[in-house]
Amino acid sequence: MSAGIRLAIVGATGAVGQEMLKILEERNFAIEELICLADPREAGTKLKFKGETVTVQSAGPEHFKKSDVAMFAVGTDIAKEMAGTALKNDCVVIDNSYAFRLQEDVPLVVPEVNPEDIDWHKGIIANPNCSTIIMVVAINPIYKAAGLKRVVVSTYQAVSGAGKAGLEELEKHSRDYLEGREVSPEVFAYPIAFNLIPHIDVFVEDDYTREEMKMVWEARKIMHAPHLQISPTAVRVPVFRSHSESINLETEKPITPELARQILEKSPGVVVQDNPAENTYPMPLFTAGTDEVYVGRIRKDISVENGLAIWVAADQIRKGAATNAVQIAEILAAKNQY
Amino acid sequence: MSAGIRLAIVGATGAVGQEMLKILEERNFAIEELICLADPREAGTKLKFKGETVTVQSAGPEHFKKSDVAMFAVGTDIAKEMAGTALKNDCVVIDNSYAFRLQEDVPLVVPEVNPEDIDWHKGIIANPNCSTIIMVVAINPIYKAAGLKRVVVSTYQAVSGAGKAGLEELEKHSRDYLEGREVSPEVFAYPIAFNLIPHIDVFVEDDYTREEMKMVWEARKIMHAPHLQISPTAVRVPVFRSHSESINLETEKPITPELARQILEKSPGVVVQDNPAENTYPMPLFTAGTDEVYVGRIRKDISVENGLAIWVAADQIRKGAATNAVQIAEILAAKNQY
Repeated sequence: MSAGIRLAIVGATGAVGQEMLKILEERNFAIEELICLADPREAGTKLKFKGETVTVQSAGPEHFKKSDVAMFAVGTDIAKEMAGTALKNDCVVIDNSYAFRLQEDVPLVVPEVNPEDIDWHKGIIANPNCSTIIMVVAINPIYKAAGLKRVVVSTYQAVSGAGKAGLEELEKHSRDYLEGREVSPEVFAYPIAFNLIPHIDVFVEDDYTREEMKMVWEARKIMHAPHLQISPTAVRVPVFRSHSESINLETEKPITPELARQILEKSPGVVVQDNPAENTYPMPLFTAGTDEVYVGRIRKDISVENGLAIWVAADQIRKGAATNAVQIAEILAAKNQY
Repeated sequence: MSAGIRLAIVGATGAVGQEMLKILEERNFAIEELICLADPREAGTKLKFKGETVTVQSAGPEHFKKSDVAMFAVGTDIAKEMAGTALKNDCVVIDNSYAFRLQEDVPLVVPEVNPEDIDWHKGIIANPNCSTIIMVVAINPIYKAAGLKRVVVSTYQAVSGAGKAGLEELEKHSRDYLEGREVSPEVFAYPIAFNLIPHIDVFVEDDYTREEMKMVWEARKIMHAPHLQISPTAVRVPVFRSHSESINLETEKPITPELARQILEKSPGVVVQDNPAENTYPMPLFTAGTDEVYVGRIRKDISVENGLAIWVAADQIRKGAATNAVQIAEILAAKNQY
């Protein structure tokens, strides 16, 4: 193996881009050269990486020419625009946006669930939606063990899903509300402090939001379960970083909560936090800054013959986005698949 | 009819007691005499009612003797203690605690759902749990129209469920967190600001909390549906006043979202707020201070043959507690059933 890969981060100044840098450093990812890119307005920004200063550059073809892999942490439109340039310059793209996720020739990967799909990439690997990543890490082990007929999921999604601006708006709205000042929403459709907004992304079909339908479409692709029935409700909550999900699973075969707990304890990327007697269960405040999916409140779903109810939380900027992308890059690097 | 009934409020200084006074005033409830009671430490507190000052007294038998009806807004233990005294003194009790709700000889009433159960009271009428009231007002019309096989509900419960102290703790924790001060939980098991706690009331059986099981036990009794299958997950969220619920309904007969919407629009106590194109859906911040149950995001549950998904919000101190109790008192007064 060489000294490492030449890695570009596109959108390095955003919430996910910044977290990617942090995670690359924490995991001591072997990098030969690191290129931090962003849009022209951000060019010149100085970032720290392993004690050294990296200057953000305005993304151009020459940067992709010099990179083996580029991790995209930008919006769908910019991702579409730039991916072509990267491919033409022989740079493999790990894209965090929605742009390519459902394209048949693009693998959509959660390393704990379908790492094998990386093998057939054609230059782009898509990083799934945050709520979907968190859900599939938790439910795939149950699916493998007992099959799944139906999944009902209600999310409790942090404002970090709307990036830095979302984080700032929750802080500002909270202060405004507490001080009795008028609250003016900009990032969200309504005030988010001390409120809940049952609407994330746009409404697409049958009165579901795209955020909700992503959980259906993407989970099916990642889990190779095209007929899996999923009923999602996605709700924004006044939490800074971690997403939580209340999930009801109807399994094909019976599975006890005890067995589910044992299986989840042995599953990659999962931490079981489940001891009601000790008030132990996942909470978003305490999972912020971590890379695992925390699962608790594992119990029989008392409304159906073969059912389980679980409660899940995970840092959406990390496992829900940046960590998952870095894990994909690690596999690409280890297998020289770039 | 006389000039009105002689009404006692037990626990008049608490969050629910205070709201009862406000609602009695708003609805111009015909009262001959109002007696405000609380525990000895609160005696002497001055409250305002219709522009006049009412002095809170330490509750004793003599007060029940002078009252036709007493609305109890106190904890389970005190309710049990005082109800006997009230009954002995011929005073009908509307009790907001958990003490009598599941007793066979005590009607458990939501006026929009089972007002007829008031007729057979034997001195005590129980006011249901807040999350249950909000849920049954929304789902009973669907149950009547299409039957219900199974209900999956995840709650998003405001801190007001823990009374005044809960409201104060959210405010304090929010300020402490924003100012970088240490957060010390007292009312809740963990910091509630910018967090979620999937644990309300104590754990009782099969790793469900009593708050969750109340939704099962109480909904069955109120709806006269002893076999209704309900799977609840109850979660505390950093919202001040209104509870929200994500509810998935599996119906016996098919029912379209359009028909469900029409039925709900005509249902008592329900306000349909459901226009995705205009970003119209229920949110707790805007339902605080109201008496209705707001229902939106009405759509087909895409994971099951006959299913609906809905999103509900309502002020838990009002419709979830105080308003429901006042409505029961109004029926008692109108029918002279005291």
